[in-house]
Amino acid sequence: MPESPEIYLDHAATAPLDPRVKAAMLPYLEGDFGNPSSLHITGRRAKQALDDARDDIAKILHCRASELIFTSGGTEADNLAILGIYRAYKEKGNRIVTTTIEHHAVLNPVEHLVKKEGAEALFVKVDRDGLVDPANIIAALTDKTLLVSVMYANNEIGTIEPIAAIGQAIAAWKKANNRKPSEAPYFHTDACQAAGALSLDVNELGCDLLTLNGSKIYGPKGVGVLYVRTGLRPEPLIYGGGQEWGLRSGTENIAAIVGLAKALALSQAERETENARLVALRDKLIAGLLQIPKTRLNGHPTKRLPNNANVSIMDIEGEAMLLYLDEAGFRASTGSACTSASLDPSHVIAAIGLPYEAAHGSMRFTLGHATTEADVEKLLKTLPPIVEKLRQLSPVRLNMKHYA
Amino acid sequence: MPESPEIYLDHAATAPLDPRVKAAMLPYLEGDFGNPSSLHITGRRAKQALDDARDDIAKILHCRASELIFTSGGTEADNLAILGIYRAYKEKGNRIVTTTIEHHAVLNPVEHLVKKEGAEALFVKVDRDGLVDPANIIAALTDKTLLVSVMYANNEIGTIEPIAAIGQAIAAWKKANNRKPSEAPYFHTDACQAAGALSLDVNELGCDLLTLNGSKIYGPKGVGVLYVRTGLRPEPLIYGGGQEWGLRSGTENIAAIVGLAKALALSQAERETENARLVALRDKLIAGLLQIPKTRLNGHPTKRLPNNANVSIMDIEGEAMLLYLDEAGFRASTGSACTSASLDPSHVIAAIGLPYEAAHGSMRFTLGHATTEADVEKLLKTLPPIVEKLRQLSPVRLNMKHYA
Repeated sequence: MPESPEIYLDHAATAPLDPRVKAAMLPYLEGDFGNPSSLHITGRRAKQALDDARDDIAKILHCRASELIFTSGGTEADNLAILGIYRAYKEKGNRIVTTTIEHHAVLNPVEHLVKKEGAEALFVKVDRDGLVDPANIIAALTDKTLLVSVMYANNEIGTIEPIAAIGQAIAAWKKANNRKPSEAPYFHTDACQAAGALSLDVNELGCDLLTLNGSKIYGPKGVGVLYVRTGLRPEPLIYGGGQEWGLRSGTENIAAIVGLAKALALSQAERETENARLVALRDKLIAGLLQIPKTRLNGHPTKRLPNNANVSIMDIEGEAMLLYLDEAGFRASTGSACTSASLDPSHVIAAIGLPYEAAHGSMRFTLGHATTEADVEKLLKTLPPIVEKLRQLSPVRLNMKHYA
Repeated sequence: MPESPEIYLDHAATAPLDPRVKAAMLPYLEGDFGNPSSLHITGRRAKQALDDARDDIAKILHCRASELIFTSGGTEADNLAILGIYRAYKEKGNRIVTTTIEHHAVLNPVEHLVKKEGAEALFVKVDRDGLVDPANIIAALTDKTLLVSVMYANNEIGTIEPIAAIGQAIAAWKKANNRKPSEAPYFHTDACQAAGALSLDVNELGCDLLTLNGSKIYGPKGVGVLYVRTGLRPEPLIYGGGQEWGLRSGTENIAAIVGLAKALALSQAERETENARLVALRDKLIAGLLQIPKTRLNGHPTKRLPNNANVSIMDIEGEAMLLYLDEAGFRASTGSACTSASLDPSHVIAAIGLPYEAAHGSMRFTLGHATTEADVEKLLKTLPPIVEKLRQLSPVRLNMKHYA
């Protein structure tokens, strides 16, 4: 396949490292390589960098530094929240309430607990826009509910969920049921996709656990953080040297942790300006995409991530479109990168009630720092002839197994 | 504390990144930032880098690429081996045989399984040099033994264990007990400390599982790999997008994985030359240290890592020595960095039968690429007056809690 000038529109899969983040990381890939557990100055410098990064993130989350556990990424942080809280507190209740549109990093540990460790799970449905109704979460609660997990923003269709409203509703339910605020059900939110665009104040959100990672916010891969409210202590997934308050052993990846803190600080400081810029580009893109006959927008029209445009283009295999666009220099996705290689239709598109054909024709474009109006215009010129061409092909030739 | 010209002698805690490794990683921190699960070319380039790194490591281990699972580090890989194999196969037997000198990344998951998941563990003793006798491992096996875990080389005292002999003895035990080679007990070795200096051919070693990481071999932190022989399938610690054959979910940290492969290739290619150079420096250092009155070498005199010198200097608190040396520019350790901050005496020094005083006066110097003969000579000039001074201080003043 010939190389083309690259227009990367898959920032929800992963984003490039911000040069300012890279600059912050480099000293820890060079001279300051110490192990924070070492007592000598090389170790203490590493420990200081670790403490500073933790303090910086705590300020953004409006939490205590001692409430943050660094992990190897968003998936591990989600697993630590779900497996860790369940295993630590299952005697308080074996029931988990979550939604049908969560990331597999939430759905799959829940499924494991159901299959192997005695949990019961309830998957709350979303509406046609992918919105979770807080009332449906509350209706699902019983005295056996230990954990509620609802994502802050969906990675595929971009819908932003009413996390603060769900947090308030859970608090009200506890009060009505004579439970202390510190008692179960505990509320977890996966904020990996939201981190670059939305407020992360855990008190506003009313959550007990919150997952963040680096790779979607122009930070490094291989690092995440789980906020855990004081008083909660998940059972570790990984045992050893006792790092991270004994909750996550393993030598700390200082360069990556420093990079995560820097990426989060930058994206939070710049989000208002950048959100406004992206919303304008996104809305132009969505309007243009919907000009193509037989298309529909997936996800909420306004309560959606500033950088996300997800459309279903009927009578087309998304994967074929993806590869034609790729040849033309546009990097896009049919859904979540984490499952796109499987060619299974998206569980999220299915969950918002669309038929199989709509799932197979879904395309996700996620914009980023480098995206310009010219990029959007170029895409809007490039895509319609591809759609037309693909719609003329027979269903047999569209079977993407030929391309695998 | 004033800064001094740094002489870093704590390579067993963590090593600096080799500039050649950094150069190999940088493209994946810059342009090639894709998610290997993405179908477009940015993703496929990342996938290719992942596949190439896996192939390169497989060649060094003489195994199949499909037998390697990338993790976030040595601790996670040890945990996946121990927790994962136990949880997947505990119905075959609930007994784990390990040694008294393993790293906490092995000891602590074993302890967790004993406390919470019905395992029985037997900790085989080592001799005064820290050597494990294969006959003692075999004597510990019963028909309920599921897993044997013995480290390849000890992180504190540097003793190299007879892994190939243990592997052969386990194979012979299986034969004598009418078990197929593919049946339990499975044999795991933690090779994190050995990776830079010793052969990693899993067939020569006769192991079913082997842990490696990047940070001790001039590679990046935050990455490790677990070799798992075909046919074995540990239960995952982390569920999600199904990466690493479904055994370790989470977006792959390509830069770190590429760095690990490069670091391993370099250290294996250069190990004969570098080992000879380090052994000469190490032996000079050990001989000089033993000139100080009332000192002893910890670990085997010859079956030891080329870069490790560990001595007990009686009537002294190691931590005090460490801090005086630190002021003089030497970065050393009293034992494992992972526990040195706790000031507890080393479990390894206790396991080789030394009294409390010897554990408290133990010092570990671990040499590296940058260490020169002049560094060793300077240390041998600097240390004796510090020892003399500290020995004149009263025991009360030596209590390191004053420094904490």
